[in-house]
Order: sequence, then structure tokens, then C-alpha cells
Amino acid sequence: MSEVKLFGTLFSPFVRRVEMALKLKGVEYEFIEEDLKNKSSLLLQHNPVHKKVPILVHNGKPIAESTVILEYIDEVWEGPSILPKDPYNRAMARFWVKFIDDKCGLAAWRACWSVGEEREKLKEEAIDGLKFLEEEIKGKNNVGLVDFVADFFAHWFLILQELAGLEILTQDKFPNLWKWINEYCNDNFIKENLPDKDKLTASFKKAFATGNLY
Amino acid sequence: MSEVKLFGTLFSPFVRRVEMALKLKGVEYEFIEEDLKNKSSLLLQHNPVHKKVPILVHNGKPIAESTVILEYIDEVWEGPSILPKDPYNRAMARFWVKFIDDKCGLAAWRACWSVGEEREKLKEEAIDGLKFLEEEIKGKNNVGLVDFVADFFAHWFLILQELAGLEILTQDKFPNLWKWINEYCNDNFIKENLPDKDKLTASFKKAFATGNLY
Repeated sequence: MSEVKLFGTLFSPFVRRVEMALKLKGVEYEFIEEDLKNKSSLLLQHNPVHKKVPILVHNGKPIAESTVILEYIDEVWEGPSILPKDPYNRAMARFWVKFIDDKCGLAAWRACWSVGEEREKLKEEAIDGLKFLEEEIKGKNNVGLVDFVADFFAHWFLILQELAGLEILTQDKFPNLWKWINEYCNDNFIKENLPDKDKLTASFKKAFATGNLY
Repeated sequence: MSEVKLFGTLFSPFVRRVEMALKLKGVEYEFIEEDLKNKSSLLLQHNPVHKKVPILVHNGKPIAESTVILEYIDEVWEGPSILPKDPYNRAMARFWVKFIDDKCGLAAWRACWSVGEEREKLKEEAIDGLKFLEEEIKGKNNVGLVDFVADFFAHWFLILQELAGLEILTQDKFPNLWKWINEYCNDNFIKENLPDKDKLTASFKKAFATGNLY
């Protein structure tokens, strides 16, 4: 029997996407909650390069980086596919995931935690990126890799931008994305796995108040 | 018969890694040289998000982002594997590729084009990253994904750091990496596909002199 452990924290979209993938595949796993202010020696041993969660440990072998873990889960376990089957569609999924994590989502996230000119610049960058996603997300069907990564915009970021007093992702500007968000967040499987809105709000509020955490 | 086009520039490690993968698989392709100061309308049409090369166009369908293209090539064409077959080894390869492109290689590259305190900081970051690669690269065998990406350090960066007057990747500090570089650059297939050292040096020199190009 295979042994699966996931090192993570409750309020991380990067950890949560891995949990959703494991649950989608029906993989049983032990969740090991990490205190990022006081990282365990096991975390440091499993991910000496980045010292970050999530880390998936499968039969004693550690894997870091959420997108690398998602591909691994799809390759190792049976069940609903996380990546599309067709090579071109797989390439497109990988392209959008990279775009969200490295560009658009990162800019949106950083806009919320910055001020002045930097905030304005990041806001514009995020909006420019979302315009591409707005076109891409049209007519998507099955939940998979891109959704698990865009999940950040569907749930976490909507709370965050409100607390930060920003209007980046609005129904008015991005009707397709808004439609996707509604469908995604009302999917029974997804709904069960989104972090509680009130608790997440409280966690973000604390982070804003202390200027700490992220 | 499939039609394969690669939009690129001669002196880009990101383009060159895609060419090496195509050649390893024995795929015939048309190389379309782009002038990055005056990008073609086809380039902008095929990669509106990043407006960058490489772009692989396979039977009319474009794919951008070199690492996404490498995975696509491995999935679509027969021939020697670019990624390892075992899922854990595949995950490790993807992890190191991400680390080189997003962290270690990026820091090393930027160190060469920066000055003062920023240069020192990036130099330290690059050296810290290379220490992890130094351990990882030990005992590697077949040429594949990680080599095509680490190729930047084997060839391009050694020229660049000399021109920049930096000592980051030295035999003294990184004996394993040095051994890997020697073996890699003396592999017959690789040797044929590395850009000419003199021409590359001239290109970098021009970039340093004009403060342009990168």
C-alpha cells in the first residue's frame, strides 16, 4: 500500500490545488500542517532548495512545486484526468498554468500587497493578463489542471482584492471569467474543497494588519 | 505529412533547446529567423500573450514557452526520450528545469547585466543555486530535458560571465558541474548543435556595448 503525505498550510492556493488533485483521484493522504514561521526539519529536508510547501511525499520520496506535483499525480494514479489527453491541449493547459502562476496571478497577488506607483503598475499588468484568460476560459468544460490553478482567481483573489480595496477582477470587465467562476465554485466537488470564506478572510485580514505572513 | 515550423533567433538558449529536441527526435522543421526589434505579424499572432520566441507551429497550431514545447515534442514524436520514463524521475527533471529557468539561471543571467549591489546580490543567489545543481548533476547519464535546459550554463553562460568579468561558475567551486559541462559539450550530437563560440561572443559583446538586445 502506498503511503502519501502532504506537507502544507491551510490557507495556500498552491497546497489546495494539490489536495484537490489527490481528492479527484481518490488518493488517501495524510496532511501535515506546517508552521511557516517555524518550519519543521522534515520540510527543510524534503525541500532544501525552496524550503516551501506544498511537498508531496510518496513512499518516502519527496516532490516539491505544485505544478510538478499535479503532473506527477496525474501520471501515477488512475481516475479522472487532470491534464487533457491530447498533446496539443496538454501543451495549452501547461501554457496557461505557467502564465497564471508566473505572470498574471503573481501580478494580481503582488498588487494587493503593494502601494503607490508599484500597485498601479501591477494592477495594470494583472488586468492585461486577465484579458487573455477572459478569452481562453470561454467554452471550457471538465474541471482540470487550468481550473485548479485558476482557482486562485475564483476564490482567494476575490476576497483579497476586496480587502485591498482594488477592483481588478470584476464581472463588468470580465464576464466570461465571472461565468467560469460561478460554475466552478458551484461544482459540488470544488465547493467541498474551497477553504471557508470567513476563515480565509480572517487570515488575510490578519496578514494585512501585521504586514506579515506573505 | 506534418508541417513543423520554429520561429526563433540564432542566439537564444530557449530556442536552441527546442532545436536540439527536434533534432534528437529526427523531426524536420523550417526555421524562421525573427528580428526581435521588428517582430513579424506571424510571431505576434502566434504568441500574443508573451510576444516571444521560441514558437513551434505544428500543422498550423502554435505553441509557446520552451519547456511546454519540449514536453510536447516528447509526447508527439517517437525517438529518444527527452523526459525520463519513470514518473518520479520525470517530476525531478521538471523540478530542476523550473529551478534553472526561474531561479538559478535567471539570477546568473541578470547578474551579468547588472551593476553594484544588485550584481553582488544576484551573484550570490546564482552561486547558492548552483550549489544545489552541483549535487544534482552528479552521476547523470543520458542527455535529456535537464541537460537541454542546463545547456545555458554549459555554453552560453561561461562566455557571458567572462565578458561580464564575473566568476560565478568555476571549476574550482563546482567540479561536478565542470565535469558534466565537459562531457556534455564533447558529446557529438550536442557539439554539432551548440552555437559557434566566436559568433556568440561577438553577439554578447555587441549587447554589452550597446546595452541593448536583452
